[in-house]
Amino acid sequence: MARTILVLGAGKSTSYLLDYLLNKSEEEQLLLTIGDLHPENIPTQFSSHPNCKVIALDIFQDDSRKKAIAEASIVVSMLPPKLHIKIAVDCIQFEKHLVTASYVSKEIEALNDEAKKKGLVFMNEIGLDPGIDHMSAMEVIDRITDKGGKMLLFESFTGGLVAPESDSNLWNYKFTWNPRNVVLAGQGGAAKFIQEGSYKYIPYQKLFRRTEFLDVEGYGTFEAYANRDSLKYREAYGLQEALTLFRGTMRRVGFSKAWHMFVILGMTDDTYVIENSEGMSYREFVNLFLPYSPTDSVELKLRHYLKIDQDDIRWGKLLDLNIFDRTKKIPLKKATPAQMLQYILEDSWTLQEDEKDMIVMYHKFGFEMNGQKKQIDANMVVLGENRTFTAMSKTVGLPVAIATLQILNGKIKTPGVQIPISAEVYHPILSELKTYGMEFKEYEVPYLGYNPDNVGG
Amino acid sequence: MARTILVLGAGKSTSYLLDYLLNKSEEEQLLLTIGDLHPENIPTQFSSHPNCKVIALDIFQDDSRKKAIAEASIVVSMLPPKLHIKIAVDCIQFEKHLVTASYVSKEIEALNDEAKKKGLVFMNEIGLDPGIDHMSAMEVIDRITDKGGKMLLFESFTGGLVAPESDSNLWNYKFTWNPRNVVLAGQGGAAKFIQEGSYKYIPYQKLFRRTEFLDVEGYGTFEAYANRDSLKYREAYGLQEALTLFRGTMRRVGFSKAWHMFVILGMTDDTYVIENSEGMSYREFVNLFLPYSPTDSVELKLRHYLKIDQDDIRWGKLLDLNIFDRTKKIPLKKATPAQMLQYILEDSWTLQEDEKDMIVMYHKFGFEMNGQKKQIDANMVVLGENRTFTAMSKTVGLPVAIATLQILNGKIKTPGVQIPISAEVYHPILSELKTYGMEFKEYEVPYLGYNPDNVGG
Repeated sequence: MARTILVLGAGKSTSYLLDYLLNKSEEEQLLLTIGDLHPENIPTQFSSHPNCKVIALDIFQDDSRKKAIAEASIVVSMLPPKLHIKIAVDCIQFEKHLVTASYVSKEIEALNDEAKKKGLVFMNEIGLDPGIDHMSAMEVIDRITDKGGKMLLFESFTGGLVAPESDSNLWNYKFTWNPRNVVLAGQGGAAKFIQEGSYKYIPYQKLFRRTEFLDVEGYGTFEAYANRDSLKYREAYGLQEALTLFRGTMRRVGFSKAWHMFVILGMTDDTYVIENSEGMSYREFVNLFLPYSPTDSVELKLRHYLKIDQDDIRWGKLLDLNIFDRTKKIPLKKATPAQMLQYILEDSWTLQEDEKDMIVMYHKFGFEMNGQKKQIDANMVVLGENRTFTAMSKTVGLPVAIATLQILNGKIKTPGVQIPISAEVYHPILSELKTYGMEFKEYEVPYLGYNPDNVGG
Repeated sequence: MARTILVLGAGKSTSYLLDYLLNKSEEEQLLLTIGDLHPENIPTQFSSHPNCKVIALDIFQDDSRKKAIAEASIVVSMLPPKLHIKIAVDCIQFEKHLVTASYVSKEIEALNDEAKKKGLVFMNEIGLDPGIDHMSAMEVIDRITDKGGKMLLFESFTGGLVAPESDSNLWNYKFTWNPRNVVLAGQGGAAKFIQEGSYKYIPYQKLFRRTEFLDVEGYGTFEAYANRDSLKYREAYGLQEALTLFRGTMRRVGFSKAWHMFVILGMTDDTYVIENSEGMSYREFVNLFLPYSPTDSVELKLRHYLKIDQDDIRWGKLLDLNIFDRTKKIPLKKATPAQMLQYILEDSWTLQEDEKDMIVMYHKFGFEMNGQKKQIDANMVVLGENRTFTAMSKTVGLPVAIATLQILNGKIKTPGVQIPISAEVYHPILSELKTYGMEFKEYEVPYLGYNPDNVGG
């Protein structure tokens, strides 16, 4: 008998997810039901598939939502994170497994006991980041500790970037995911991490000036700035004793130094509304953040304010964005600086239909084994095919899809609210991901840690 | 028959207030009742005065609070701003006038109709800033507009500083008021103002690098950074048409550039708690915000991080605070960076018993009259006598005291929730303040505005 997989929300990150499940639908006897508020937007390559049913579903209509969930064998929620809890509560009621790619909220966590009692797997954080980062990290950490090694250092970096062949601007960056998250990145509190046993804090106003560099074979050098939450998985990963814990976001070298200009100018602020934002030119927007002068140009005021020399590449990056243009207008009403900056950036940084994105992930594992300090670096690069079949969509959607089928088939069966950090989960998923070209390369490198001689402070 | 003035809260800002009212008590037939949670702290020079009664009063005890208010002829609340509303509601019930030096809250504003109906004067913002700033500004603005002038520019600056004779550190600054407010100054949103009709926004990360300079005859040059609320009194002052509105806080030149170091390091952040703050040395505190290095000193890391040359006076300012000391410890548990910084600063910046503070206020009024553009600059300097009779206490307490007596005597009588911007209020108060040496000096200066030639943008 065919099993029904209910996928809620068919946004841009679901192309690979739907593709995978429909490809397996014959062999695995699957019926796929896609519930979406706007089913007309679902590509016909999916909706016309014989094993696919598309339903118009408003998640706030209790009757239709509950009916769809009751009829499913397993539920995948690709909705915005805030909406998962509605689905999760229904999944408890109708005893359905649930899969999401989102962070575990407190509300979802609170369902753990009930999910366990009913034998339900509530799998979360099974996309890219969070998702593949958990699985690939735990696979190496477990291998090290199983052999008696003691973890000293763990650093993990992810970047959603543009593929080298589509990398055509001075920022070496285009939006491949939610632009708003990129503009607001790093706000809301200091970044906190540990280096050699010392806590370190970086405020937003220095975040993009404290990058570290990473080399990826065949792809050159990247930089990374600190995430706010480097200590978040300390216990989950069993790294309570590690002296160094750091998580970061990867960009091409030079991006952060240039982005820092927007931070310092105040253009990334999302907490207040600009007077008369509608119809403001890019140039007028820039001038809001510069001292008044009747005699100097916006250009010179900005150069002086940010101490940009005439041969500084950051200047070219600003020109690249047409940021001094008098004719280009921002059409947004009552917009915050961040919303206006996003508009200007989208004007330049939007991926074209034939352009490709790129996902890069990089882990460092420092450990002590048999009295020796060692280090393993592992990294993965995934390239997109085009603007629809992106590397982002692939790396988010495939782990979700694979996990869903594994749970449905009883291969992943430990019940409860969880993230993919146990061998039962990561082994089969990582091994299948390899067949789709998503594989980490590992390198044994000398262990440097942050303090090879154990001196200083 | 003697009238009873109830003063609630007898903190350090009340010395001149109590002194004034007791000095007038015979002539004006006043009985002063001071209600305080800790009446034992009230100096005996006040409590032993024949016309003074001191009562232990917990503002949260409804019965005793209402009883004290019911027995008074007028109430002065010098309590923390949040507590005024309790008093105000009672004042409505028992039909008493109310005087505070605090900003009008929404809750207090909402009592306007009732206060008016009952003929009660609820006078607020009648200290220094807000207070003397309102009165001294409106006196000049009314004079200009009464003569047919049109206001073009209004800028207003206030500083609570250390008197020249007690100015003994490289920062030219000591705490003369609430240190916490100084450490948190400028946080919580961008500073917004208008220059020549253009809105301008300064984010916190640039606030202390956008100062303007002010000369005060006999006292040298000061600098000022922007307040968040330059547009707050636009309507109240009748300045809707003015092209430039700016309010700022005054410091000695060089303070802000040095303070900016703390901002950039992240030491003024009050939104999160430092791990293991208790017992941390000043040096360890600084190191929290610097990159890890096994081979470099905290000193060199900081110099490099903030690009401080060897001959930069900011370095001396840091040394002045013993900020690299390994032996000085911060005893605070679960402290935020801002709380820890405040501790370090108070160690150096606390006013000694015989040291004097200084209040400086500076206004600029630009206007057009008879087709000519003109400008009046006005400033006032008030020096304290010692750590108890401070200029701050004088400039806050005397306007409150004078207003209280004026209201009691029916000289100020227009009812309602208000701030001191009408001639009925500011004339008698400013004129009496002069007899205490608080007087503005006015200078006619060429009008430069921000755009004398009306060019550029």
